[in-house]
Amino acid sequence: MLLEAIYHQPKSQYAYAYDEETLHIRVRTKRNDMDRVSVVWGDKYDFVPDKITTTEMEVFAKDSLFDYYQVAIKPPFRRFAYAFKFEKGDRTVFWNEVGFTEDSLSSSGVGMLWSPSGMFEFPFLNAVDVHTPPEWVKNAVFYQIFPERFANGDPSLNPENTQAWTHESVPTRDNFFGGDLQGVIDNLDYLQELGITCIYFTPFFEAFSNHKYDTIDYLKVDPQFGDNKTAKKLVDEAHKKGIRVMLDAVFNHSGYYFPPFQDVLINGEKSRFKDWFHIKEFPVSTDPLNYDTFGFVPEMPKLNTENREVRAYLLKVARYWVEEIGVDGWRLDVANEVDHRFWRDFRDTVKAANPDAYILGEIWHNSMAWLQGDQFDAVMNYPVTNSILDFFVKDEIDAESFMGRLDAMQIAYPKQANEVAFNLLDSHDTPRLLHIAEGNKDRMKLAALFQLTYMGAPCIYYGDEIGMTGGGDPGCRKPMIWEEEYQDRQLFEFYKNIIQLRKDHPALKDGTFKFLSAEKDNKYIAFERTDENDRFIIVMNSGDTKQKVEINDMEPGKFRNLYGTGSYEVENRVLSLELEPLSAAVLKEK
Amino acid sequence: MLLEAIYHQPKSQYAYAYDEETLHIRVRTKRNDMDRVSVVWGDKYDFVPDKITTTEMEVFAKDSLFDYYQVAIKPPFRRFAYAFKFEKGDRTVFWNEVGFTEDSLSSSGVGMLWSPSGMFEFPFLNAVDVHTPPEWVKNAVFYQIFPERFANGDPSLNPENTQAWTHESVPTRDNFFGGDLQGVIDNLDYLQELGITCIYFTPFFEAFSNHKYDTIDYLKVDPQFGDNKTAKKLVDEAHKKGIRVMLDAVFNHSGYYFPPFQDVLINGEKSRFKDWFHIKEFPVSTDPLNYDTFGFVPEMPKLNTENREVRAYLLKVARYWVEEIGVDGWRLDVANEVDHRFWRDFRDTVKAANPDAYILGEIWHNSMAWLQGDQFDAVMNYPVTNSILDFFVKDEIDAESFMGRLDAMQIAYPKQANEVAFNLLDSHDTPRLLHIAEGNKDRMKLAALFQLTYMGAPCIYYGDEIGMTGGGDPGCRKPMIWEEEYQDRQLFEFYKNIIQLRKDHPALKDGTFKFLSAEKDNKYIAFERTDENDRFIIVMNSGDTKQKVEINDMEPGKFRNLYGTGSYEVENRVLSLELEPLSAAVLKEK
Repeated sequence: MLLEAIYHQPKSQYAYAYDEETLHIRVRTKRNDMDRVSVVWGDKYDFVPDKITTTEMEVFAKDSLFDYYQVAIKPPFRRFAYAFKFEKGDRTVFWNEVGFTEDSLSSSGVGMLWSPSGMFEFPFLNAVDVHTPPEWVKNAVFYQIFPERFANGDPSLNPENTQAWTHESVPTRDNFFGGDLQGVIDNLDYLQELGITCIYFTPFFEAFSNHKYDTIDYLKVDPQFGDNKTAKKLVDEAHKKGIRVMLDAVFNHSGYYFPPFQDVLINGEKSRFKDWFHIKEFPVSTDPLNYDTFGFVPEMPKLNTENREVRAYLLKVARYWVEEIGVDGWRLDVANEVDHRFWRDFRDTVKAANPDAYILGEIWHNSMAWLQGDQFDAVMNYPVTNSILDFFVKDEIDAESFMGRLDAMQIAYPKQANEVAFNLLDSHDTPRLLHIAEGNKDRMKLAALFQLTYMGAPCIYYGDEIGMTGGGDPGCRKPMIWEEEYQDRQLFEFYKNIIQLRKDHPALKDGTFKFLSAEKDNKYIAFERTDENDRFIIVMNSGDTKQKVEINDMEPGKFRNLYGTGSYEVENRVLSLELEPLSAAVLKEK
Repeated sequence: MLLEAIYHQPKSQYAYAYDEETLHIRVRTKRNDMDRVSVVWGDKYDFVPDKITTTEMEVFAKDSLFDYYQVAIKPPFRRFAYAFKFEKGDRTVFWNEVGFTEDSLSSSGVGMLWSPSGMFEFPFLNAVDVHTPPEWVKNAVFYQIFPERFANGDPSLNPENTQAWTHESVPTRDNFFGGDLQGVIDNLDYLQELGITCIYFTPFFEAFSNHKYDTIDYLKVDPQFGDNKTAKKLVDEAHKKGIRVMLDAVFNHSGYYFPPFQDVLINGEKSRFKDWFHIKEFPVSTDPLNYDTFGFVPEMPKLNTENREVRAYLLKVARYWVEEIGVDGWRLDVANEVDHRFWRDFRDTVKAANPDAYILGEIWHNSMAWLQGDQFDAVMNYPVTNSILDFFVKDEIDAESFMGRLDAMQIAYPKQANEVAFNLLDSHDTPRLLHIAEGNKDRMKLAALFQLTYMGAPCIYYGDEIGMTGGGDPGCRKPMIWEEEYQDRQLFEFYKNIIQLRKDHPALKDGTFKFLSAEKDNKYIAFERTDENDRFIIVMNSGDTKQKVEINDMEPGKFRNLYGTGSYEVENRVLSLELEPLSAAVLKEK
């Protein structure tokens, strides 16, 4: 037993309330080290041997170094004092906050190691603290729209020098194509046909650039895109078709032409907005830069969200779009650089306006500090993005490493945050999926199939579904191709089908997830998704050669392939199949 | 290198802001495993090889399994992307969020492992999120008063059947001795002579019992103790003598006779207070108990702090005593069972009334979830209490185990929380220190000396300083002995001296702390406390035999013993001294 590998932290991603009755308890051990791991628990106010329960835990995630065990428990009085029990061969070791011991509760009497004050504790499950994301997100399929480039529905709004919109249009850092909100309204049928249930808009508030991340007025639709009435109409029309709308909140920084910043530039220390930003000295200078910005970009001055007026202003914005326009969620740009305190107030404000609103943080790294229930519902799941790309698209990692990196995200957050994690494969900030796949649509499809059969809410970047290409910004921001002859309609059908597959089978959304095969140096994986109704075995071959796959230790069962043809049956506890290069089977138990 | 032993969690006790400019970064490794550990860091928006810094870390805590490294860094733009570098013999391994690699940044170019999006991150140091406890607590010496038992200053308030107050009085669970607030006012000089700078009162609001944890009116002093004017006078008089006052907030539960609970008992489902508690069914019944309580005590119904009215009421209470009466802090009873959300509002309310108020949670187990800056300043440090008792008083653990358990608390919380942790050795809830020491005053003194020379705010339970005895409740709640002939005046002088020693030397309060010797099976320890002005080596022998102590690897220096007599000098890098059984030396560098 490698004691040094064991890890647990009370009241963290290792011990949290999943709902108002249920705790999830997790513990880490060295990979393949233990025969059995259990949690030994009771009520601290009645902590006597015959009231103590021992509950076995199960491995729910693995990586190359560790096994992660988990168990769900409903403590009758919502109080939970606990220790862990590790068994290997003849050896049994208990562990609590005081340390390791080989004395069991019954043999030790109640010494320090078994006194209730030495136990790990989840002292009380208070409902108000439970991290509870909106249910609808589990069933959502998102579609990201960059408003300047999706569709031009009202040419009267075109800015000066609007470029022609064709399948050959070339975007630059600062040209315009005339996309607008009416264009989105006009194409809601298209999104509905594809199966989309929520649009994620990059910013459409008044701003200077074509990407609109440099806000001028947070309360106003950019005149190039329409006005607030168009936005309201868009939201209403979308809702009628069962499509929700999420906006982009760029609250870390404003644009250079945000009037309060202009006031500071002009009036310096005398400006009544001087504390709205982080100005280090007056007069304000862009070179050398003497105020805080996003990155080192002078045009994006960082907002001082600790300032009472700034907070009040931004919270008014947060409320306005939800309450007055009816949007269903906020994606928070550069969320990790804004203070936690602001986000707590933001959550209170948004959830008061609509308890079902989705609050999604843009964070690229470990986000546990924002996912404790008081700030975000979920984050953009870049570690999963990168793992999918590295395994299916770039062919850079093996199956074990893929599993390790995905499972690391399972242990990184509470389950409810992973259930509504925002799983994207590309965006306006990255090369397009097909570009990364170097045009290989089989690899692209494998990545998308995994995305649509994994936990979390998938998001498709506009145009991926019809085969649009393009490298990093600005290449990935081409105008949407609407000329059908230049659309890959087969790819569209593929996306439509896998979206429908996900929608038809709740097990593929919030069922349990478990790798069945993900071995070192292998290029194929198998995983299981189950709920009370269905059981799926999904096998994917990311290798360039035909692959024979055997999944061992299977219960008897018959399966039908929903992604292709054929039936399969477990024989002698083995499920065998053969996969073509870069192909997959989605086996549903009959 | 044991990779499985390595642990770090971003934005946690392993990576936090110590002040508005400084981050503390920590990492865990197997004990004595590494030659060198460093943090490799830069700004994510300018993450190029020649802008990356490598800063060596130092071991700041140890236990039997692990070394804990720490470093303090001030990132110039308040953004911090980082990895760790581990060196052992010829091997160098880097570690970031993606995993382990042997490729350095310069050799790898910028692949995934060295892309800024693969780094650990402290994305932005926002001042408002920094955990900032009040400075005064670092210099405080607390004294706990159980109001019914400290002094009777106004016999006109005596309840019926008040017992005689002598050195032989025997407390029971429900008798009364007539202690009151005037009694405390009358004895402020006594506390000032002892050196006390803050009184911690167990509850003195109107309640039924003698301990007053079963509140009837949170806005009123119990008539047996005086009235709110007496409380105001007490606070004012104490302040004049440089003594602050902390009250006990029993917000987890009310008393049985709390009028809203009585209303629910009488009016059941029709009571306008029915949602103030957690009633599972009506009519309310104490047997079987059908409402949530503290423990299983029917007389202490749990308050529903999720209810808007309950929150408003308790926050009014929190504000009233700070704003109107001028108290300097709140100790929060059963703090761990009240929701986090309530405590966030509580902090906002109390700090708005007095930014310097101390917020102290009663939590017996790991409390990191409450010490992130948004809830408590500190917690009652029971793990340290138990470690001191086990080593110095009960003689149950060896020096290595003592170090391991104390150092585990150093890594468990941010440094600023440990600097103001509330270090008690006994209380109204435990046997008295002298009782645990079975009357051995040498052991008692060692424990107190350690308490007064360790990090955190020490608290003395009333009467310990004059040799009062008594087992658990009610034994530990005897009336204070005021007859000098029954007081241990030598012990009083001892306490007075060690309190003065601490006050005279800031290094003993918030200087650095480091064990110099704490070996397996040993009964003695040596530790160092230093600040910019002073350096102390403190050596303590908890064994029953004379002990020769040699501290190796010492820089040259001469020391004077401030706890006894004699001078010492480092010779050939060794500091040698001999300690009598159960004795200590407090060596100050000349």
